[in-house]
Amino acid sequence: MSNLQVLARRCPVMGKALAVQSARSGHVNFANAAYSGIRAYHSKIGRAKMHTTSPMEAQAIEVGLTRSEEVPLGHLKPTTNQPPQGASGPPPECPVTKFDYDKFYTTELDKKHKDKSYRYFNNINRLAQEFPRAHMSDVDQRVTVWCSNDYLGMGRNPQVLKTMHETLDRYGAGAGGTRNISGHNQHAVALEGTLAKLHAKEAALAFTSCYVANDATLATLGSKLPDCVILSDSMNHASMIQGIRHSGAKKMVFKHNDVQDLEGKLASLPPETPKIIAFESVYSMCGSVSPIAKICDLADKYGAITFLDEVHAVGMYGAKGAGVAEHLDYEAHRAGHPQGTVMDRIDIITGTLGKAYGCVGGYIAGSAKMVDTVRSLAPGFIFTTSLPPATMAGAKAAIEYQMAYQSDRRLQQLHTRAVKDALNECDIPVIPNPSHIVPVLVGNAEVARQASDMLLDEWGIYVQAINYPTVPRGQERLRFTPTPGHVREYREHLVEAVDAVWTKLGIKRTSEWAAQGGFVGVGVKDKEEEVPLWTDEQLGINDVIKEMKAGKGAKGILESVLEKEREQVIAVGAVA
Amino acid sequence: MSNLQVLARRCPVMGKALAVQSARSGHVNFANAAYSGIRAYHSKIGRAKMHTTSPMEAQAIEVGLTRSEEVPLGHLKPTTNQPPQGASGPPPECPVTKFDYDKFYTTELDKKHKDKSYRYFNNINRLAQEFPRAHMSDVDQRVTVWCSNDYLGMGRNPQVLKTMHETLDRYGAGAGGTRNISGHNQHAVALEGTLAKLHAKEAALAFTSCYVANDATLATLGSKLPDCVILSDSMNHASMIQGIRHSGAKKMVFKHNDVQDLEGKLASLPPETPKIIAFESVYSMCGSVSPIAKICDLADKYGAITFLDEVHAVGMYGAKGAGVAEHLDYEAHRAGHPQGTVMDRIDIITGTLGKAYGCVGGYIAGSAKMVDTVRSLAPGFIFTTSLPPATMAGAKAAIEYQMAYQSDRRLQQLHTRAVKDALNECDIPVIPNPSHIVPVLVGNAEVARQASDMLLDEWGIYVQAINYPTVPRGQERLRFTPTPGHVREYREHLVEAVDAVWTKLGIKRTSEWAAQGGFVGVGVKDKEEEVPLWTDEQLGINDVIKEMKAGKGAKGILESVLEKEREQVIAVGAVA
Repeated sequence: MSNLQVLARRCPVMGKALAVQSARSGHVNFANAAYSGIRAYHSKIGRAKMHTTSPMEAQAIEVGLTRSEEVPLGHLKPTTNQPPQGASGPPPECPVTKFDYDKFYTTELDKKHKDKSYRYFNNINRLAQEFPRAHMSDVDQRVTVWCSNDYLGMGRNPQVLKTMHETLDRYGAGAGGTRNISGHNQHAVALEGTLAKLHAKEAALAFTSCYVANDATLATLGSKLPDCVILSDSMNHASMIQGIRHSGAKKMVFKHNDVQDLEGKLASLPPETPKIIAFESVYSMCGSVSPIAKICDLADKYGAITFLDEVHAVGMYGAKGAGVAEHLDYEAHRAGHPQGTVMDRIDIITGTLGKAYGCVGGYIAGSAKMVDTVRSLAPGFIFTTSLPPATMAGAKAAIEYQMAYQSDRRLQQLHTRAVKDALNECDIPVIPNPSHIVPVLVGNAEVARQASDMLLDEWGIYVQAINYPTVPRGQERLRFTPTPGHVREYREHLVEAVDAVWTKLGIKRTSEWAAQGGFVGVGVKDKEEEVPLWTDEQLGINDVIKEMKAGKGAKGILESVLEKEREQVIAVGAVA
Repeated sequence: MSNLQVLARRCPVMGKALAVQSARSGHVNFANAAYSGIRAYHSKIGRAKMHTTSPMEAQAIEVGLTRSEEVPLGHLKPTTNQPPQGASGPPPECPVTKFDYDKFYTTELDKKHKDKSYRYFNNINRLAQEFPRAHMSDVDQRVTVWCSNDYLGMGRNPQVLKTMHETLDRYGAGAGGTRNISGHNQHAVALEGTLAKLHAKEAALAFTSCYVANDATLATLGSKLPDCVILSDSMNHASMIQGIRHSGAKKMVFKHNDVQDLEGKLASLPPETPKIIAFESVYSMCGSVSPIAKICDLADKYGAITFLDEVHAVGMYGAKGAGVAEHLDYEAHRAGHPQGTVMDRIDIITGTLGKAYGCVGGYIAGSAKMVDTVRSLAPGFIFTTSLPPATMAGAKAAIEYQMAYQSDRRLQQLHTRAVKDALNECDIPVIPNPSHIVPVLVGNAEVARQASDMLLDEWGIYVQAINYPTVPRGQERLRFTPTPGHVREYREHLVEAVDAVWTKLGIKRTSEWAAQGGFVGVGVKDKEEEVPLWTDEQLGINDVIKEMKAGKGAKGILESVLEKEREQVIAVGAVA
C-alpha cells in the first residue's frame, strides 16, 4: 500500500483530501484515513494499473507510522475521478511500516533462550529388539532410555506388533477419511468396545490423541452445558487447561489434590449450575495421586460431574489395567463386580493409547449418551482423519494383553521401588509419591540440563531435564520412568551414574534439603510416608518385604524376586 | 448440600440467620446465601460428621430453586458455634435441583436427530489388496468405496507398506513420548526434512493431524502476534475456524475466493497491524480452487502473511505433488527453480499425511524461524505424543514416491475427468470445478441420505451423503472421489447406479436445475467453463482431447489412454 500513499500525496485530488483529513483527525489517524480514502477512490476508477514501481519494490518500502484507530471509509470518498499523476519518482518522505514478522519470531525465540525454556530435542531411536535401549542419530551409538512413557514396553510387545503387521497388510496404512466419511471401520468399533469394557462404561470414543480427547471433550461440554463451571486441579495437564479455555466456561482452579479447597469452591456455586470437576489420577511430573473417591463424594454432594484423566495410569494400575480408579477397588474388579466402585462413579474417564499401551491415540469413556453427545458435537473429533486401522488394532491388542496379564505392571512397580530405594540409599533427592514416577529434584534449570547432558554423554543414560514451564521454576528435576525392561544391570548403572553426576555437579542431596527444612516433599521432617498404590500383597511380595524390614539381606531377596518375575514375563510374552 | 439446608432450617442459630438473610435479600438469593452461610458455619465447627442421612440419600433429593447471584460468604457468618440439632427427620419442604446432565445429553442428541444432522457411521473396511474395494461389518460383503480421501491409494502402496513393516519391527509401535521427552527421533527429522524439501521451504513441523496443525498454528500465531487480525475465507475448514477462535485474535471473514472483498477488508486495517490471510487451495466439499497468486499479491501489498491449507491438494497437484501452489508454476518446479514462484511466496503451508499420502498426521512448512516459534510455543504440538516411527517413515516414503512418480495423480485426474464427463452425459448435476472433487447436487438432506443408502444397499457403492453443517442446507450432495484404482468397470457401474437412483428417487437433473435458472454452479446459463488445474498438456492427452472435441469416437480413445496409464502405474508400483 505504501506506493499508493506516495501517489496520493502527488495527486491533485487526493493530496488535498489527505491534507484536510490529516488536519481534521490528527496525526495518529493519518495512515488509516489515507489508505481508506485512497482505496475507495481507486476502486472507483476501475482498478487501473498504476504506472509505478513493481509490487516487489513497493513491498520493500518500510517506514514508521504509529498505529491508528480505524476510520470509516466514507469520510474521504473523492468527488472526482481524475487519475493520479506523477506516479514515478523518489522514495516517499513518510512511508509506511508493515509489521515485521521475522523480527517477531526472533523476539519470541530470544525470550525462550533467555529464560532457558528453549527446547533442544534429543534424537532418540528406541530399539524394539533391545528395549529399553535406543540409538542416537549415529545408529551405532547406544543409550539406555530412562524417561519414555512406553512404561510397559508394549510398543515392542510381540502380540501388538503381530496384530499391527497383519492389519497393515490387510487394511493398509491409513484410515482414508474421517469417522463419518469412510474412516469408520471394524477396528474403531472393536477398539471402542474394548475401551468401554476396560473401564466398565457403556461407551468409549477414540481420538487421534488424548490431548485432543481432553481438549475436545472439555471444550464441547463446557461450552454446551448452560452456564457451566469447570473446577480444575491447579496441576492439570495443558490439554485440559486448553480445553477449559476453549470452552469459554467459567473456570475455578482448586489447590492441587486439596478436597477442602475444592469443596469451598463447589459450595460457593448455585446447586443447579452444571459443574465439571476436571482432574488427573497420576500427575506425571511429580507422581502424586489424587483423592478420587473423595472427589466423587463432593461431586455427588454438589451435583457436579467428574472428568478424570487417567493418561499416566491406564495399563499401569488396577486388576485389568484400567487405572487408579480401578485400583482403588482392586478385588471387586478382579471379581468382575464394578457396580458401586470408584471407577463406576466417575462420569468421564480419559486415557491414552500412546503411553502404557505403546501406540498412539486417546479416548474418553462414559455413559452412552455423553459419548454420543461428544461424538456428535466435537469438531476435534468430527473433522479429523481417523486413527489408522493398524494403530487401532495394535492398541486393542495391547489393552487386551494388559487385561489378561499383570506381570508387566507388577514388574514395573517392583523396578520402580528398587530404583527409588537405591537412589534414597545414596541420599539422592527422590520426590516422594505413591506412583511409578521417579522425580529427582535438582532445583535449577541450567544444572538440570547439565545433569541430563552429562548422563547422556558420559554414561549413555537418556533422561530429559524437566524445566519450566512443565514444572515451576526452582523445582527443576530429572524424571525417571523404570519399565519391566530396566533389569538389575541397568538399574545399578543408573544409580552409580546419578550418584557420580550429583557429586560432580555438586547438586543438593536429600540430607542437604532436609537441613534447609525440606522442599517439595524432599527431606521434610516427620512427613507421612507415601504408601505405594500397589500394596505389597498385590505385588505378591509380602514375605520379602517383611524380611527386608527385619534387615535380613533384603536387597538380595528383592532382586531374586525380580529375576523370577522377569522370567515369567518373558515366558508369558512367548506363549501369549 | 440439600441435607444441610434441611438442617439449617431446624437449627436454632442458622434457622434465624437464614430467615433474616432471606427477608433481606429476597427469594432469589436464598439458596446461595443459605449454602454459603451454612458452609462457613460448619467448616468453623471442625467438619463434624453429621448425624443424618447418607450422602447417597442426600443426593437423591432434587427440587426447585431458581439460579441466584453469588453472595459473599461473610454476610452470614454465625457468631456462636452451637451445633445443629434435629438433623434427622422428614424430607425437606423446598429441596434443591441439581443439574440434570442426562437430560442435557438427550436434548442435544434430539436436536441432531430433528435437524437430520445426526450421523450414522458406516462400517467400511478398505481392503489393501482389493483397492478400492472394502468389506462391511460382514467380512464377505464387498462394496466399492467412492468417497475415501486416500485419493491415490497410497495407503496400500507397496513401498509405503514395506517401509512401515520394517520400521515397526525395528522401532516398535509407538514413539513413547512427546517430541521433547524421548519422542524425537530420526524419523521425525527425516520426515520434516522431506516436507521442507517438498514445499521448498526452510523447515517443516509434523503434528498428529492437520486439524491440530491448523488449530495450533493459527491459535499460537494469532494470540502471540500483537493485535493480530486473521482474514478467513468463508468456506474455511473447521480446524482453521477453531484455530482462529482459540487465538482470540480479531477475525474478518471474506467471501469465498473473493479477492475484492478480501482487499476491502485488508485496506480497512492499519498497515502496521499484523494480519494473517487463512485460506485453502482446494475446498474439499465443492472442489473450488482459490486464487492463490492474487491473494499473495494482496498479502504483499497490505503487509499480511499467507496461511495456505493444501490438505486436499498435497500429493495431487504440482510437478512433485506439493499442491496447487506448486502446480501454478509447474514447469519452474519441474526444473527445480522454486525461487519467486507462487509456492515460494506463501508464508505458511499446511498439509496432511492422511489423505493423498495414505497415512495419518499433519504438518506446517515455512521459514525456519516461524516453524521454530510454533514448535516452541504451541501446546498442541508440545504436549502430545509424537506420531509413531512407522507412520512417519511410511508418510515419508509416500511423499518421496509421489515426488518421483506422477502416474498416480495423472491417472487420478483422468479418472476424475472420465467420471465427470460420464455423469454430465447422463444429465446428472455435477457441481462444476477445476479440481479432482466430484460433488453431485441433491439439494435435500433426507433424499441425499436415501440416495447414499440406496447406492450402498442396492449397488454396493459406498458414498457418504454430505449434509448440513458440512454444506449449507439445501446444498446437500454426494461427493465422489475417484482414485487411480477406479478403473473402467467401477466407473461404468457407478454411472449406471447413480442414473438409476436419480430416476428412482426423482432427484433433479442438471436440465431441471437449468430450467430454474441454475444453482451452485449447476445448470447456470452462460457460465464460464471451469478449466481443470491439470491441463491436457500436463496430462499428455492433447491429441486425445483434440480428437474428442472433433467427435471422433473420443470416449473409446480416452479409455484406451486410461488403460495404458493403468498398466504404467502397475509397472512403476512393481519396479519402484
